[in-house]
Amino acid sequence: MDPSQIKIPPMKDLNIDNITENTITINSQSSDLRVTYLMERLVTHLHDFARETRLSTNEWMAALNFLVRVGQISTDVRHEFILLSDVLGLSLLVDAIDHPKPASSTDGSVLGPFHSHEAEHITQGASMASDPGGEPCIVICTVKDVSGNPIPDVKIDIWETDSTGHYDVQYNDRDGPDGRCVMTSDKEGAFWFKAIVPVPYPIPHDGPVGQLLKLLSRHPWRPAHMHFMFEKPGWDHLITALFLKGDPYETSDAVFGVKQSLITSFVPATMEVAEKYGVKEGSKVLVHEFVLVSEKETEELRDQNALAAMKKLGRKVKLLDHLPVPDVD
Amino acid sequence: MDPSQIKIPPMKDLNIDNITENTITINSQSSDLRVTYLMERLVTHLHDFARETRLSTNEWMAALNFLVRVGQISTDVRHEFILLSDVLGLSLLVDAIDHPKPASSTDGSVLGPFHSHEAEHITQGASMASDPGGEPCIVICTVKDVSGNPIPDVKIDIWETDSTGHYDVQYNDRDGPDGRCVMTSDKEGAFWFKAIVPVPYPIPHDGPVGQLLKLLSRHPWRPAHMHFMFEKPGWDHLITALFLKGDPYETSDAVFGVKQSLITSFVPATMEVAEKYGVKEGSKVLVHEFVLVSEKETEELRDQNALAAMKKLGRKVKLLDHLPVPDVD
Repeated sequence: MDPSQIKIPPMKDLNIDNITENTITINSQSSDLRVTYLMERLVTHLHDFARETRLSTNEWMAALNFLVRVGQISTDVRHEFILLSDVLGLSLLVDAIDHPKPASSTDGSVLGPFHSHEAEHITQGASMASDPGGEPCIVICTVKDVSGNPIPDVKIDIWETDSTGHYDVQYNDRDGPDGRCVMTSDKEGAFWFKAIVPVPYPIPHDGPVGQLLKLLSRHPWRPAHMHFMFEKPGWDHLITALFLKGDPYETSDAVFGVKQSLITSFVPATMEVAEKYGVKEGSKVLVHEFVLVSEKETEELRDQNALAAMKKLGRKVKLLDHLPVPDVD
Repeated sequence: MDPSQIKIPPMKDLNIDNITENTITINSQSSDLRVTYLMERLVTHLHDFARETRLSTNEWMAALNFLVRVGQISTDVRHEFILLSDVLGLSLLVDAIDHPKPASSTDGSVLGPFHSHEAEHITQGASMASDPGGEPCIVICTVKDVSGNPIPDVKIDIWETDSTGHYDVQYNDRDGPDGRCVMTSDKEGAFWFKAIVPVPYPIPHDGPVGQLLKLLSRHPWRPAHMHFMFEKPGWDHLITALFLKGDPYETSDAVFGVKQSLITSFVPATMEVAEKYGVKEGSKVLVHEFVLVSEKETEELRDQNALAAMKKLGRKVKLLDHLPVPDVD
């Protein structure tokens, strides 16, 4: 770079008290106001963290080496940084910020690191899990709007572990997707499928995130659940899960995903249900109604929350593509 | 884990407003008070960052994918997380916190990602750089205490780039250390060696950190410098560097390392110096005196600074191994 093109004020002799403002200055040369704002807050919090803890060189180096290990254990099918974000409560928080829910809609939950894009599309009533060790069940759902009208043609991703608590992608020798599928809601907003009853399982704890949990005397368990993701243009993207009532880890989920409204129970199939869905009377059935919110309503709620939070923070901001940037006018 | 052993209060229905306190609670089960305090501040700042920016799911995912790339490009000889810490001003800050300096001592600077442990020990007057493209020079130093007494037997690590601005470890086909050495100060606290005149160079910007700098419209250049690291039991570990006066990047160092007190100049060897060190009259010479602080004095200053910072923060703390932990008595 041609040194004569340097546009920042001269900086030298940086110390505990002036490093933050100078880092923010040097990071403020982009024309992207959102990037500038994100970096300003990031550097402020990162530096305040070091100042407030009097972070030592040894601790700093241990943390950087930990982060290298988190990156290096990650693969196409294992995202250890998502897992880290999950156990730090950040994933739940970001979902709550980005997908605010009106009272009448289905709550969101964490995506987790095990969603994949290779699931096969299945038709109504087909099975999405082949594990013979799992307890068979059927899951009967509808997707509606907040007024109770069915929403057809929603793309639904569904995924769960096998009976040993492992997702398909956790097996090196797997020969295709299993325990996962993609479905489409019909004219009545309905979709149903065969699956296995979910079981509690520990998140992968053989890597750096597991070491962190151990250091913190935390257990790695998640209560039994089944993941659902809903997508349709015009509707807010919904990532959620259903949890089973009475699970021993219901109130200590390692990734903070449980909402009371998402806890449900299997019931034995009545004769009527058994006949309609072609299963044995008394076999396990889970029935659930999901409620989506329009993209417009979510955006309005998100904007409203953002402006309220910024006001509380005392920042003069404007929204750019629905995200806060400093209002420098 | 046996669910009956769970000791945290039940947590469910976590949202924007209560996720932080609950994450802190679940992270507070360790008997290591320092770990508990570090995690409390980390989670608080991480969550506040997300709330204050209204971090979107897309931005969060982009950041996590960026961090995976930072981990995955790292090797034994390239620590991209140190580089990231450097360009965010964190490395300078941590060094300033951990190694506070009395006015009369040598200032610290950033370690950078290119120190290695494979440098060879050389004797007084030997050469530490073999690059024929570099401009030869000699560097004549002393190590003293704050009262001006020489400190013998100090282990000194010295490292610099070659004339193209690359460290030895940046070459895949290198056949051993070059541009780096370890020396020991003699009875008079003196050490001197042959080297090449340092040149400005860009930090490695072919990876994720380079992409970040580009996004921020920042240049990756460091002004010409030579790294020094001093170790001796009883003395505070000093990581520093000498910079050359008049460098075009003197006031815009990409990693914030320049201190006025560390800027120096080469001078032509006088006849006397030329005779004493066996070089040609007029050849380039750099003379510098380094001043170390005792471990005890540094510890006292560090404790004092820590207590003052905690008082300002309004925290009731005690120091455990010289690091703050909440005082819960």
